[in-house]
Order: sequence, then C-alpha cells, then structure tokens
Amino acid sequence: MSTALLTDRYELTMIDAAIGSGTHDRECVFEVFARRLPETRRFGIVAGTGRLLDAIGEFRFQDEQLAWLKANGVVRDRTLEWLADYRFRGTISGYREGEAYFPGSPILVVEGTFAEAVILETLALSVLNYDSAIASAASRMVAAAEGKPLAEMGSRRANESAAIAAARAAYIAGFSATSNLEAGRRWGIPTMGTAAHSFTLLHDSEEDAFRAQVEALGPGTTLLVDTFDIERGVELAVRVAGTGLGAVRIDSGDLPTQVAAVRAQLDALGATSTRITVTNDLDEYTIAALRAAPVDSFGVGTSVVTGSGHPASGFVYKLVAHRDDAGAWIPVAKKSAEKATVGGRKRGVRTLDGGVAIAETIVVGDGGVSVDGRELSVPLVVDGAPIERYRGKDGTERAREHRAMAIAELPEDALRLGRGEPAIPTRYA
Amino acid sequence: MSTALLTDRYELTMIDAAIGSGTHDRECVFEVFARRLPETRRFGIVAGTGRLLDAIGEFRFQDEQLAWLKANGVVRDRTLEWLADYRFRGTISGYREGEAYFPGSPILVVEGTFAEAVILETLALSVLNYDSAIASAASRMVAAAEGKPLAEMGSRRANESAAIAAARAAYIAGFSATSNLEAGRRWGIPTMGTAAHSFTLLHDSEEDAFRAQVEALGPGTTLLVDTFDIERGVELAVRVAGTGLGAVRIDSGDLPTQVAAVRAQLDALGATSTRITVTNDLDEYTIAALRAAPVDSFGVGTSVVTGSGHPASGFVYKLVAHRDDAGAWIPVAKKSAEKATVGGRKRGVRTLDGGVAIAETIVVGDGGVSVDGRELSVPLVVDGAPIERYRGKDGTERAREHRAMAIAELPEDALRLGRGEPAIPTRYA
Repeated sequence: MSTALLTDRYELTMIDAAIGSGTHDRECVFEVFARRLPETRRFGIVAGTGRLLDAIGEFRFQDEQLAWLKANGVVRDRTLEWLADYRFRGTISGYREGEAYFPGSPILVVEGTFAEAVILETLALSVLNYDSAIASAASRMVAAAEGKPLAEMGSRRANESAAIAAARAAYIAGFSATSNLEAGRRWGIPTMGTAAHSFTLLHDSEEDAFRAQVEALGPGTTLLVDTFDIERGVELAVRVAGTGLGAVRIDSGDLPTQVAAVRAQLDALGATSTRITVTNDLDEYTIAALRAAPVDSFGVGTSVVTGSGHPASGFVYKLVAHRDDAGAWIPVAKKSAEKATVGGRKRGVRTLDGGVAIAETIVVGDGGVSVDGRELSVPLVVDGAPIERYRGKDGTERAREHRAMAIAELPEDALRLGRGEPAIPTRYA
Repeated sequence: MSTALLTDRYELTMIDAAIGSGTHDRECVFEVFARRLPETRRFGIVAGTGRLLDAIGEFRFQDEQLAWLKANGVVRDRTLEWLADYRFRGTISGYREGEAYFPGSPILVVEGTFAEAVILETLALSVLNYDSAIASAASRMVAAAEGKPLAEMGSRRANESAAIAAARAAYIAGFSATSNLEAGRRWGIPTMGTAAHSFTLLHDSEEDAFRAQVEALGPGTTLLVDTFDIERGVELAVRVAGTGLGAVRIDSGDLPTQVAAVRAQLDALGATSTRITVTNDLDEYTIAALRAAPVDSFGVGTSVVTGSGHPASGFVYKLVAHRDDAGAWIPVAKKSAEKATVGGRKRGVRTLDGGVAIAETIVVGDGGVSVDGRELSVPLVVDGAPIERYRGKDGTERAREHRAMAIAELPEDALRLGRGEPAIPTRYA
C-alpha cells in the first residue's frame, strides 16, 4: 500500500512553489529532534525507525493518488510529473531504534534535495512521534516491574492500526508479549491471552466455563477468577485444573490486598507454582506500588498504548542546513523565541564515565570533530536504500536488545518515576 | 485488506474453548458503553461507526492469517475451519455516528452467536474508542471557537493510520478541513495547508519565498509570517501579495497580543480583508482565550489528535444477555464492584423538554416499553448486511450533520469547558 498521501497538504504545495522558484533541488539537511522531554520524564526511547524504513520504501505516488491530486488541484501538472517519478534517493542517518534520547538529540537526519526530503516530514513524524511515545512510557513500566514480565494488551484502547505499532514499541521497550495477533504475525512478537469475563458469563456456571477452558487450553492456562467472587473463583480454578494450574488472573479490586490473599489461598490449596497475573488499569505507578505483592506478571492496557499521559513525543522535523548556489553549506535556523532551532548537520555522542552516561553530546557541523564516547548516529538509508538490518522481525529484536543496552548505560536515577530533569545534560560540541 | 487479526488473542481462544463446550453458538447480546465520561467532560460524541461497518465487512480470515494461526498453535483445527468460514451474519444496532452519549449509553448492541459476536470485540473497541475520543475533544474546540472555522493539522502527532481516522472524527465534530491528504481522498474532507517555516528558510530571503508561494498558489494563499520577525513579515507579505492577500498565519508568540497587532497592521496597510489564522499549540482552552482577539480561523494539531488529555474513550464491550437452551433470554452481568454491568438488551432514548435534552433514558429488555423522546438506537447491520447510508463519504457527511443536531439539543451548559457532571443524567427504564 502506498504511504504517499499520509502527508500534510502543505508538503506538496511547498514542492509546487519550490519547483516554480527553482529551489526544489537545493541540497538540504532536515533533522528530527524533541525540544524537551515530557514533564516527569528523564529519558525517551526512540522507536518506529524500522517501520519508517518500510514506509519510506512504500512512499510512491500511484495513478490513484495522482488522479486525486490532479482532480483536487493540489499541485500543478509539472509537480504531478515530479511526484509520479518520486522515490527517496537521499541519505538518512540517525539514532538506532531502541536508543535513549534527550532534548535536542538528532534522532533522524534526512539529506537530499529540498523536495525529496521535505515530503517525508509528516510520515516520519507520525511514525516516530507515536512509536517513541509508547516505547518511552513502556520503558518506565518495565523498570517499575523490576524484572517481572509485562504483556501489552491495550489494542482496544488505540486506533486499530496504531495498536499494532504500539505492541511493537512496547516489545522494543522490554514487554514480553502482546495480545495483538497482527503484531505477532507481522513482527514476530509473542502473543498471549486466554479468556474474558464474557466467557464465564456465557456458561451456565463458572465451573462449566473453567472446564471448557482447561479442556481447550490445558491446565497450564490462565483462569480469570474475579467474575463473581475471587475466593470462590480461586478454589474452583484449582479444583478444575488441579495444582498444576498455570496462572490465575485478577482484573478488579484492591490489588495489593487481593494478590496477597490469593497467593496464600493458592499455597494452602497446594498450587504453589500457580502464578498470579494482574490486569486492572495498570500504569507505571500502580506497577511500582505492587512491588511488595506476590504478583508474577502484569498485563497493561490503556496506559501503555496512550503513552501514559504523553501520547505524542513532540518530535519536530526542521530544516537545519542547505547548500547555496556556490555549493557551500549554510546552517539555517528559525529565530522565533520559543521555537528556536540550532542550525547545521548534527550527530550524537553519548559521553560516558566508567560505562555510565554523563552527557548527550551533540556535534554540530561537518568538521569531523572527534569526541570521546559512544557514537549514536548510524546510517539508516544510503542513496535511497534502507539498511536491512534495522527492518522486519530481526530489526525489531535488534531494537529490543539495543534498548536494554542503552537503558543499562544510564545513571541509576534515570529510572526513578518521580518528576525530574533529563537524566543527563545535553551539550553542543 | 483483512482486519481479522486486529484482534486480541483471547477472542480466538475463547471461541476455541466454546466450540469445545458447545456454547459457541448460543445467541448472545453484547453491548458497547462507557461507564463514565472523562473527568471535566459533560458529553461525548460517538464517532467511528462508519469506519467500523467497513472494517466488519473486511473481517475475514484469509489463507495467510489461518496459516499463521495454525503455525502458532493459537486454536485447534476445528476452530480454524470455523474461522475460515467466518463472516458476521448477526445484527447490530446502536447510536448514529455523531450522536451525543453519556455514561451507560448503549452506543453499540451486537447480536449473534457468542463466537460471531465476541470476535468483533477488539476491533469494535479500537475503532470506537479512538474515533470517539477525537470527536469528543474536537466538539469542545468547535464550541470554544464560536463559529470560527477550525482545521485539523495534527497528523504528525498521531500514528500514520490513526491520523486519517482523527481527521475524519474532527470533521464529524465540526472542524472544516484537515491537512491530511489521505483523509481528503478517502472521506472527501476538504484539505488545507500552504507552507512551513522550512520553505522560507530554503530561500535566500523571506521575500523570495513569499514570491515563490504567491506565484504558485496565487495572492489568495496564506503566508506564514513569523519565521523571522512578524511585523516585518506582515509588511513584506502585503507588499508581495498585495492587499488581496488571503491570510497570514502566526505559529508562535503570545497570540492575543500578537493577533491584535497584526490586525491593526494589516488594516493600516489596506489589507482589511486579509484573514488571520493561528496555529500555535492550540486546544479548547487557548481557543476560548482568543475569543476577544481578531482571529479568523484556527489550526489545531496535537491536542485534537490526542483527544486533549483523553486519548481513549473508555468504551467496553460486554456480554449483557444470552439465550438459554430452552430459548429464553437470560440477562447477565459481572458483579465485581467497580466493574458492574447492567444486564439485558438496551436501547437509548433522549428525553426532551421543549426540544432540550433533560435525560438519557436507557430502556432495558425487550418489553417494548414506550418512552417519550428521540429514539437514539438505529439498525446498523441487519443479518450481516451493513446499512449503506452510514458508510463512506455520504455517511461521514451525515454524521457531521447529525452531530450538529445532537449538540444543538443539549442544554446550554453542556458546552462549558469547566469541570462538571454529565450535561444530563442517565436513567434506566
């Protein structure tokens, strides 16, 4: 499917006007960065890069789209011809998917002619802003869970296509599984889930429902025990499935109290290896509040797919340099006070001390300034060809591993949930 | 494209177990409703219905999906056969798209066998929760703008597919246009947009940029005047385009002060019919704060596509009745305290007094209770066939008109932005 119209109209009218003034093929550098982190956040996690590489590959104007643009007078015929021939032939570098970012981090640097680079603005921001919002929120939940597994199960609280991206972003951030089947098929993410309350209510009794589920899914399944009365539900669950019951799920009530009581009851019934999973409107704060409770795993819905209060990352896509007619690079910047930008091509370096991050160093310009630390910017698209290792299922796994490394490198207080400054300062070099 | 895997795994494992216990073809009634409105909100607007009817039509398991389910052992072979044959053959009624809703409103009622109805849960909630969140937030912005036009331009701050749905939902809520081209092509929504700061920065001077834009788009275009200095930008814009300049756009600064100064300057330059559009991080509150300012139109981004603090509507999809083996309807309800549901098939009636809504009356059961007021529930799918009038571009326009009517019927204080209770109480009859 073409992604070419997942685009703001003004990208095309700018190209139309630039073709008119002969500036459309000036070489340009655009940069994606966030001016600040959301309040309370100490770091962000880049996600969406692998999906973006796919989407850029599908950014071609087909007859259907061109006909619609013509019929609606969006651009002139000469521009339609340019669009018909369009594919991105430039170069993109940026932070690896799964990388931590901070205010000003140049997470994507797009180089090409003005027209071929500006046209990707809306699509690049859509993908990166949403996916990174999810990964950033999910990372905090993973930290709060202190090693216990989390499953993403928020598809129903997100747009149906966004849900697939959210499952992927949460997985990159360290979630173990998703309820979303398409995310399983497309990205190879483990899927989970057994039954809802409606399944119990459908049957003539809770016992009939449990028997039907165990018959289909085996005693290792997870039984939902809170449709009527939790204590009765737990007793019944063990009676039906035996002490080899895989897990019970609790989706309501006062969890810290509830979970302790269920653990004691399971142990008393001899179901000492039966796990407890909880799924009642969790976010990073309620997960942290369950640290002392004998919870074995968490299912997280609304809060993760909506970025836990911050559903968009605030990335912008700005022109930072262009080459003049004499071939020299001119750094450019908008001067309006609260939206000022730093001109010039950039790359990021994580400055480390004993393996711990101490600064985000942003190197401006092409002077090849040498800065100690871990280079953050890697080639993603070279002369129009996306780097394969960042795409598909392998790219998703690689991003998940990279995220684990990048988080491990942050100072310890980066994982605190309370309000605070970015975990490391941003410096320009 | 098949929508069948835009689904939580547990929908399929429940069907698998229910096929085993012989309960999968029990006739059931499922209901979509919200337990409460988001804090501060006095009403919600239903959106997504037209898109959902399309998505249900495309809910078919194709070879690719079936092979993946088999390879991953999600369900047993008998269930795979059932899925291969699946299409929704039941009946759906519900609130018209664009209708106002309140806590407990039965906005969608799905009737069919357990298996054929439960399988639509995730998809139905994804579509309705997101689209209604956008339409509900957008409606408040439309009210705050007091008749001045608003354009949705938040695609870059939403998942790339969600952005199309957001544009549609905002249009249904009364926005006039969108920046999103695919929303224009797919749903017939007027599109807008001219140029970004990068276009000005690309050129050797602001004057070169303005000349290029006016040459391409005509003097009726909207020039962005705040890249460097607004006063100089306005003077230059009128000099280049003439006093027939369509509009100037301001995207930064202290808007109330800025806008008054720009209006005075435009008038002094003779550009008395040149409009002023503002686009700087607006939401319903900043729009309301501009009531006294000579703004002609608003462009809204992040806040509208993220539901202005409430990115998901909180709709749930609950089994409320099933027919027992003797053919009698049994109302069912989950009893856990904070998630209690009211059993039984329902329909909604808006109780009116002199044309003004005074209550949301929810009629429970099939007794054909007669209640005065406007019937809210209409057939949407009959024996598997979606009602065409609610689909496509016409359905979208119809939803927009219906929303205007539904809002006009609410008591005046429904449109207040401050915190408060739902505009009308919900009663069961």
